[in-house]
Amino acid sequence: MEDLPSLVSTPRTKLKRRADRGCLDRATINAIIDEALVCHIGFVDDGAPVVLPTCPWRMGDWLYVHGAAGSSLVEKMSGKSPLCISLALLDGLVFARSALRHSLHYRSVVLFGRGEAVDEPTEKSTALLSLIDKLSPGRSSMVRPPSEGELAATGVARMRIEEGGAKIAASPPGETTIDQPWQVWSGSVPLVLNAGPPVPSRNSAALGATPLPSWLESSPIRQTFKR
Amino acid sequence: MEDLPSLVSTPRTKLKRRADRGCLDRATINAIIDEALVCHIGFVDDGAPVVLPTCPWRMGDWLYVHGAAGSSLVEKMSGKSPLCISLALLDGLVFARSALRHSLHYRSVVLFGRGEAVDEPTEKSTALLSLIDKLSPGRSSMVRPPSEGELAATGVARMRIEEGGAKIAASPPGETTIDQPWQVWSGSVPLVLNAGPPVPSRNSAALGATPLPSWLESSPIRQTFKR
Repeated sequence: MEDLPSLVSTPRTKLKRRADRGCLDRATINAIIDEALVCHIGFVDDGAPVVLPTCPWRMGDWLYVHGAAGSSLVEKMSGKSPLCISLALLDGLVFARSALRHSLHYRSVVLFGRGEAVDEPTEKSTALLSLIDKLSPGRSSMVRPPSEGELAATGVARMRIEEGGAKIAASPPGETTIDQPWQVWSGSVPLVLNAGPPVPSRNSAALGATPLPSWLESSPIRQTFKR
Repeated sequence: MEDLPSLVSTPRTKLKRRADRGCLDRATINAIIDEALVCHIGFVDDGAPVVLPTCPWRMGDWLYVHGAAGSSLVEKMSGKSPLCISLALLDGLVFARSALRHSLHYRSVVLFGRGEAVDEPTEKSTALLSLIDKLSPGRSSMVRPPSEGELAATGVARMRIEEGGAKIAASPPGETTIDQPWQVWSGSVPLVLNAGPPVPSRNSAALGATPLPSWLESSPIRQTFKR
């Protein structure tokens, strides 16, 4: 295991409640980002918050996003605006015997910082191909690479993974003695993002399906349909 | 089908790109909110954006959240601060033959507005029990209701579902004639949030498992473990 520097805790990232769920370990946080297919990017526009979903990916200590060149998401991620990037993986539903102890199992990450544009064409292309490999390991070398025009029409930006942290909830439901007379099932129900049977394009049905990331590849449904 | 008033489109909610994916239909937007177990709430704190994940639920035209009384999320949702609430359901991975046409299938909602506190104890309790029923239909009447002390320690707030809209992507991968020589599988892989086998608390293993929402109940894995 590499010995990675932890993320930086600041007054605004410090958990005020359930600090036991907090985590600054970079390997843990990297793993959450690597599994997330959606993140929510917050910025301030004309004094009001805007939160937009997009697909994040990671290269080293940087979280990357992309979009149409000139889109407000890419502009805000490329400039000097303060950003907050938040993502959450859902792991389960937690059913307690009392109403207010119901909860969720999750792994979430909240990051603060400012972004920067990735404009140099080779760097930009490398970054975008890395996103393809996140969706399907090894696929980037099998598809048609971006043309100059496509690259110019696409904006890529990144933010350093530095200030922030993860919050992880995985405990069984809380219960006190006054809850015990309530004869109702309690426990947790795991939630898993599964891949269903691939739907090939008309002209590619004869080709082998594309590999999936390990957290999808190992899903029971995916096994059923694996070629 | 009820005839519900559409959401309100404003300059900041209007889609600048892929307007064909936009949707203001309230029934569609309600269904996305009802299925979402996580939303991301954005607010501005000291000039900088903050985006926090929480579990949303809906009653009529209002989106509700809860948290510890006095937490910054509840405070911001209860006050006059401008808010942006964003949520995204992931439906699939889209694999094209060209790098830059890879994408995701999703249903997302972005809402703008200001929140208000739900302080009256009966209203607050009704709202919290409605959240339980979102996680497990009919369960709220089976569990120990909130005590006065528990209610006082919990903050509930809501925002009217009014300004904003949904964006829905469900198309097969784009392909141009220059992509056709690339002999690589293309198509989409559906993603589904599945429930795994319930994990009962020690003292409730003999009781029947709790019902799940229909979109989880119908999942193939869930069928396997259904009691």
